[in-house]
Amino acid sequence: MDRIRESFGRQAFMRTIGAELVSCEPGKVSIACGRSEGILQQHGYVHAGVLASIADSACGYAALTVMPEDADVVSVEFKINMLRPCTAERIIATGSVIKAGRTLVICEADVTDEDGQTLLAKMTATMFTVRGQV
Amino acid sequence: MDRIRESFGRQAFMRTIGAELVSCEPGKVSIACGRSEGILQQHGYVHAGVLASIADSACGYAALTVMPEDADVVSVEFKINMLRPCTAERIIATGSVIKAGRTLVICEADVTDEDGQTLLAKMTATMFTVRGQV
Amino acid sequence: MDRIRESFGRQAFMRTIGAELVSCEPGKVSIACGRSEGILQQHGYVHAGVLASIADSACGYAALTVMPEDADVVSVEFKINMLRPCTAERIIATGSVIKAGRTLVICEADVTDEDGQTLLAKMTATMFTVRGQV
Amino acid sequence: MDRIRESFGRQAFMRTIGAELVSCEPGKVSIACGRSEGILQQHGYVHAGVLASIADSACGYAALTVMPEDADVVSVEFKINMLRPCTAERIIATGSVIKAGRTLVICEADVTDEDGQTLLAKMTATMFTVRGQV
Repeated sequence: MDRIRESFGRQAFMRTIGAELVSCEPGKVSIACGRSEGILQQHGYVHAGVLASIADSACGYAALTVMPEDADVVSVEFKINMLRPCTAERIIATGSVIKAGRTLVICEADVTDEDGQTLLAKMTATMFTVRGQV
Repeated sequence: MDRIRESFGRQAFMRTIGAELVSCEPGKVSIACGRSEGILQQHGYVHAGVLASIADSACGYAALTVMPEDADVVSVEFKINMLRPCTAERIIATGSVIKAGRTLVICEADVTDEDGQTLLAKMTATMFTVRGQV
Repeated sequence: MDRIRESFGRQAFMRTIGAELVSCEPGKVSIACGRSEGILQQHGYVHAGVLASIADSACGYAALTVMPEDADVVSVEFKINMLRPCTAERIIATGSVIKAGRTLVICEADVTDEDGQTLLAKMTATMFTVRGQV
Repeated sequence: MDRIRESFGRQAFMRTIGAELVSCEPGKVSIACGRSEGILQQHGYVHAGVLASIADSACGYAALTVMPEDADVVSVEFKINMLRPCTAERIIATGSVIKAGRTLVICEADVTDEDGQTLLAKMTATMFTVRGQV
């Protein structure tokens, strides 16, 4: 899982929003993000784009765990439903692989509050396996 | 369009990523964002989450332009396809209303490079009209 | 659950494709469909539109189970990923409510083969509560 | 465009719902479907699954027009927003390619009434290029 951590470390945008990689196992990756002023929208909730960003990264890295060692991952598309206004102090996106193909890996992500009890958003995403140089 | 500008001004996350409201007319809103280190992913492209964030905001505000004066907008869901690696120096998301209902407003957004010639991503989004207090 | 069965009975399109309501409990509805010549696409697999149709109906009826008695349901949008070519003799779409709001109900559906072991497609859907006359 | 017509002719499901290929040019394909009892849902509108089915086929064939001669197309995923109850006597789905890659082709489709004036539904879809035998 070192390549996931190394790659995550190079995601400047994840640092910008204060996101961190909290767990990583084959087919499943979690990324957390604390509530901070800089990621809010106009009503004081965490911006839907932030939920989407950590969910997309969690899906992408979950996909990468099942790709060949020399491969890299790019997001083809994702869809996210926002289920509740996000007032949690800390949110966690857990991306899971639901189908690993040779070229495409289909994932889903749950975005929850810290204790995992409240589902805030749900994503499905299509990830593409890039061989060699991205 | 003052309420759009006022609301956008309260979106701390838009400031965090360096996004600005560039145009606003009934049913159509554009938001731009310059390329900066803090919004990149691991390959040096603008993070898909950033494209999604400005496209979501552009759709949300496009929807708000067609809602009653006392209403506010929240994102129900969106789906985005990333069409090319985003290397542009400046990107623009233009959200347009494709169907305005009483409760739901359906929008789409094109994310392009600055001159509008290269389509980088395409979103469709469902926005919800909130009456009174959000 | 009588109103679900009664409503399903009025869905002529479900009869056209040979779909039947196989189970119905609060928040969860399953619809099955046998493989028949008339629902195939050009390669001899069940058409993606058929998977989408039974998944959409399963989500819609799952949503209806949590709506008020006098309400009806319409589909706002859905997104489906096809995970494998569909060669099963019988497919089952199980729709589940993941968030029930006053106006919107968000659902997901798994489309599997008959024994539920192979996931063929995955949908997320947004359903709208219509009060009074549709 | 012969291979499109030939392939469409082998789509039994399109016959089942009464759909026909009405136009076909590079990057753009239209499929129409008359209103008939057998494609309706419980309120007497055309079933959302039917709109999705012809839109998916229109996107798939639009994608196929830009793929190599020996390639075939499969649907990876699609997302559709239903914009109005569908009461039209005849509906037309026009699929257009918005980005043609080597492996993936991204399309969108408008579903309208016969004169193209009323937008009934909007789809975006991801299509996969299959080389050799499907």
